[in-house]
Amino acid sequence: MVSTSHSDGLSRRLVLGALAAMPAVPGLLDASAAQAQNTTPLASWNDGSAKQAILDFVRVTTDPSSKDFVPLEERIAEFDQDGTLWVEHPVYTQVVFCLDHVPELIKARPELKNRQPFKTVLSGDREAIAKLSLREFFEIVLGTQSGMDVEAFREISRKWLAEAKHPRWDRLYTELVYQPMIEVLQYLRVNGYRTFIATGGSAGFVREYAEKVYGIVPEQVAGTEQAFKYGYDKDRRPVLIREPKLVLDNLEAGKIENFWLMYGRRPYAAFGNSSADDQQMLEYVKAGGGARLSVAVLHDDAKREYAYGPAQGLPNTSVGPFSQEMYDMARKQGWIVVSMKDDWKRIFAFE
Amino acid sequence: MVSTSHSDGLSRRLVLGALAAMPAVPGLLDASAAQAQNTTPLASWNDGSAKQAILDFVRVTTDPSSKDFVPLEERIAEFDQDGTLWVEHPVYTQVVFCLDHVPELIKARPELKNRQPFKTVLSGDREAIAKLSLREFFEIVLGTQSGMDVEAFREISRKWLAEAKHPRWDRLYTELVYQPMIEVLQYLRVNGYRTFIATGGSAGFVREYAEKVYGIVPEQVAGTEQAFKYGYDKDRRPVLIREPKLVLDNLEAGKIENFWLMYGRRPYAAFGNSSADDQQMLEYVKAGGGARLSVAVLHDDAKREYAYGPAQGLPNTSVGPFSQEMYDMARKQGWIVVSMKDDWKRIFAFE
Repeated sequence: MVSTSHSDGLSRRLVLGALAAMPAVPGLLDASAAQAQNTTPLASWNDGSAKQAILDFVRVTTDPSSKDFVPLEERIAEFDQDGTLWVEHPVYTQVVFCLDHVPELIKARPELKNRQPFKTVLSGDREAIAKLSLREFFEIVLGTQSGMDVEAFREISRKWLAEAKHPRWDRLYTELVYQPMIEVLQYLRVNGYRTFIATGGSAGFVREYAEKVYGIVPEQVAGTEQAFKYGYDKDRRPVLIREPKLVLDNLEAGKIENFWLMYGRRPYAAFGNSSADDQQMLEYVKAGGGARLSVAVLHDDAKREYAYGPAQGLPNTSVGPFSQEMYDMARKQGWIVVSMKDDWKRIFAFE
Repeated sequence: MVSTSHSDGLSRRLVLGALAAMPAVPGLLDASAAQAQNTTPLASWNDGSAKQAILDFVRVTTDPSSKDFVPLEERIAEFDQDGTLWVEHPVYTQVVFCLDHVPELIKARPELKNRQPFKTVLSGDREAIAKLSLREFFEIVLGTQSGMDVEAFREISRKWLAEAKHPRWDRLYTELVYQPMIEVLQYLRVNGYRTFIATGGSAGFVREYAEKVYGIVPEQVAGTEQAFKYGYDKDRRPVLIREPKLVLDNLEAGKIENFWLMYGRRPYAAFGNSSADDQQMLEYVKAGGGARLSVAVLHDDAKREYAYGPAQGLPNTSVGPFSQEMYDMARKQGWIVVSMKDDWKRIFAFE
């Protein structure tokens, strides 16, 4: 009766559950899409060592005759979001969301007007705002995302996401996802991997679009987390209020520490781009036994997207620095470094 | 592009992923089992209002023509573990696990020998041990489950679970799961619900058998959580060390606060038994819109299992008190109260 991770009980239940549910939701099955994904996977990737490494990893971990075969239950892949699945430049999207809500916060709490970092935000000085530290961004996040019920926050997030646009492309932020990475997510799932997001941002924000945009259900999104407090509204209905208190901090090694806390396993594959919160995750995944895949996305395409970070010989930005230290670590430990310029045929689906 | 919770993208992907994975793991599909579960569900339940309420809930939330229909993506059900899915009397199983490891802890840290609550544990005085408070148990949990790597802890848990037996039945603890609840889990999953455990115990312990025993994957087990710390072992390999620091506390309202933190949604169904950590969860679930199911298990079967708690007119125990206050709340808010004596045809699979 004691658990072994090689049981097939889960797998059978997953399939049974999915099949049994089908009559209730017509049109679920699209066998040709699965077929297409397995015969021409990673269509937006140029042929090369990065694409080949991903294909090889999936092959050796899913072929039952391979020494590196991974049972279905253990196929777990983790993805950073900002700079790995979608554009993070010039400022993290969630920070833009929070900055847009600072005026509202000041209206409710005018005493913050002359306090940093709010004073800088209200000045409108874009250059100064871009120079705020991650910790200062956290303070803005906690300020603007607190005091309301969790379900009210869902509405606020959805409304913003349906309207706000990235200034460079004049498109919704949710359109600025990297098509090659969408294909990696699909390819892994079609091959039995469960895909997770571990973001430095707030899970509550990302969960509002992760399902539609990435095919990732809310419970497979982990993030930096504030506290929630149980209480009652004026009609004595129970509510969960967002509190301005950090509970899980996904920066630096926090991302892998909290991944274990949330999911209890070492992933077989991890994808990231930033020394600020992906480095330890990528190192830890690669250090596991058997075939493991650690992939770092290098932003080296100033024309189609952006080029930034010391690994490009370019200055650090407040977001997503790919440090020289991480670059050296990647080479030494055998991570895959993806060049957006060379490895990706196209960046976005709308191209 | 913006997420709505009614998208069918997820459902299609779930099915595609499951189907695509099948060739790699033969023998997954057992259509007759699904069939059986849907034609004679809850076979270990006596006919009565509790069984009927569960059947009705599943019917109205999965029938597309019902006004209470719940889309596949939102079908989430939460289960307490101790006293709801398996025996918690006379002491929580995980506490027994920890008590068994106190001598080892004292060997490593002899200064704890004369300090409470360790002194009481070492005295072997069963009555005094049973009277320790939940907070004192937490201290023992933190003491005995810290200092080792997360993967080493998995081994320690598995080893104990394969050997330790409940004194009354002389069976492995993992055999002392309630067969009627196993059937509820299966029935919900066959009808498209994703099932989660939210326990007051440590997720890391429960995750070692939840998949085999309950069909619940590690990432769908939430619990009280200690901190993990990233570091390197003597061979410079990265490790995650369990720290004696509480990060998520699932007692009282903490269970529903942390459920939202982990999974970001209000469940449609919740099952519990204890005023110590299930009361707010059950209240919150029942207060949601549409059809919601809150079920409280009453331990009123002294012959086949145990009878305890003020709702039985019996004294409180250190575990799982079903208080009179919770009983009144259940009646007032329309929860389902399950009598183990009257509603369950059998308690265990081995009967």
